[in-house]
Amino acid sequence: MSSILVIGTVAFDSVKTPFGEAPEVLGGSATFFAMAARLFTSVRLVAIVGKDFPSQHLKMFEKNGIDLQGLVRSDGLTFRWKGEYEENMNVRRTLETHLNVLQDFQAEVPESYKNTPYIFLANINPELQLKVLDQLNHPKLVCCDTMNLWIINQRKDLEEVLKRVDFFIISEEEAQMITQDHNIVRGAREILKLGHFSLLIKRGGYGAILFTQQEQVFAIPAYPLENVVDPTGAGDTFAGGFLGYLASRDRLDLETVQRAMVFGNITASFAVEGFSVDKLTDLTRDKVRDRLGDFLRMTHLAPVSANVE
Amino acid sequence: MSSILVIGTVAFDSVKTPFGEAPEVLGGSATFFAMAARLFTSVRLVAIVGKDFPSQHLKMFEKNGIDLQGLVRSDGLTFRWKGEYEENMNVRRTLETHLNVLQDFQAEVPESYKNTPYIFLANINPELQLKVLDQLNHPKLVCCDTMNLWIINQRKDLEEVLKRVDFFIISEEEAQMITQDHNIVRGAREILKLGHFSLLIKRGGYGAILFTQQEQVFAIPAYPLENVVDPTGAGDTFAGGFLGYLASRDRLDLETVQRAMVFGNITASFAVEGFSVDKLTDLTRDKVRDRLGDFLRMTHLAPVSANVE
Repeated sequence: MSSILVIGTVAFDSVKTPFGEAPEVLGGSATFFAMAARLFTSVRLVAIVGKDFPSQHLKMFEKNGIDLQGLVRSDGLTFRWKGEYEENMNVRRTLETHLNVLQDFQAEVPESYKNTPYIFLANINPELQLKVLDQLNHPKLVCCDTMNLWIINQRKDLEEVLKRVDFFIISEEEAQMITQDHNIVRGAREILKLGHFSLLIKRGGYGAILFTQQEQVFAIPAYPLENVVDPTGAGDTFAGGFLGYLASRDRLDLETVQRAMVFGNITASFAVEGFSVDKLTDLTRDKVRDRLGDFLRMTHLAPVSANVE
Repeated sequence: MSSILVIGTVAFDSVKTPFGEAPEVLGGSATFFAMAARLFTSVRLVAIVGKDFPSQHLKMFEKNGIDLQGLVRSDGLTFRWKGEYEENMNVRRTLETHLNVLQDFQAEVPESYKNTPYIFLANINPELQLKVLDQLNHPKLVCCDTMNLWIINQRKDLEEVLKRVDFFIISEEEAQMITQDHNIVRGAREILKLGHFSLLIKRGGYGAILFTQQEQVFAIPAYPLENVVDPTGAGDTFAGGFLGYLASRDRLDLETVQRAMVFGNITASFAVEGFSVDKLTDLTRDKVRDRLGDFLRMTHLAPVSANVE
């Protein structure tokens, strides 16, 4: 079982969905990732919060075995994001973004973190992702995420990051934005040229699909959910389950990667059933196990012969 | 191996996609269905065409073992549909519809067809679907499709049909239209109340998902395609592969149904790689077999334990 270091945002989210509203709740890419990955292994957090960040959240992280040595507590205000979802929960609108303390974030990696074998560069400015990479001692595996803002405004930094990662984990919309191609297979081929990584594309309520440099493809449907309350953080939670499982197994063969996709999928299915990290705080391995069993029953095809006679 | 009877449209389609245009080409729900199902078993066609319908198409049907005894050749003009697709091929706009001979179609089932065990009520006015059902002698299995027009304008007839079918096969958008609910799981539960059928929802480039009255769920991703030229007829082709496989096996247990979904999926993946039935006319079982092998490699999860320690 190997540790994971995550750099990303810890934030206050204000979210409105057709099913309700949650003002100023705990959010951020590193938050969702850490709360998922901690189910599988120990997690080290590199992030920044402001003086307004309540100690109850810090205690919650610590209670869940998340190492906060790399969490800077600054004088300013914590990063804030406000957004809303349409009836079709796949469509999201950002209403406000207040960077606040994020603007001064130096992304310094504590000495005790520098040998961490598994790294997740959660969605944050790619300059900061690069800065973290420069401070590490030969990690075993590096994964990264990004968002539309960096794809458009900081493409060069993003491409520098991509030369140095093993997995690039993005949403289908982000993949389409990078390539300007709606076809996911053609798009994936283009994106794979940007480095030596495997590409893992998240398709929201439709599952996920993996493309490797060796032209392997692996697709899974999503766990069918009846109550999607708030999709915020689903992608980060997917990454947390994915990398958490890989680190816990400490293996990187294709079969383990495929299983890790399923664990990411299942972990994310819990996150979207509540606002903020509500459904992740009391999530246990037992609950993940139960839903995994359901998922396997819902997707496992009994052996089928290609002989159609 | 059991025969299939299909009632539906045989049409001239004029289609425009971001990749090209195809004016006045062979289309229609029964056409695509029959050209897929004929790979697996013999198919009997109940449909109408006009005097402008070229004999080369008739010969093509016959060459592919499609029985045309139930195909009426009328004095008017063949049904025509014109539509275009946006860059995102999941979004389609109908530009023109000319019913022509369809308006006088009586949907008479030839005597020799009346004992056919497998029935597909392809997308056509539900009054005609009912009329066909009334002429049959205790079929073994009835599946039906529909479209937005009938959901809105002929809901009562459609609901009469649904009381008498074993599988209802529709697109995700149609399911959402029936229930006014974006959530597919909640929506499926509502739709299942309309009869005793299993519900098979087609999700375009994202695969398909099955819901049974016994609350079983089964989901498959789509075969990832690099060249989607024209999605017209994909749903009918899916149904043709699905029901064709079931009829060829003449079994209705859940495992056979799950496999049939995969065959539907694979058969449809060929249809969308060309305009009209271009990619179905020379499709063979060998080609289906090859792609099925690829699909299984891309989706088969090596045994995974729910034990995450």
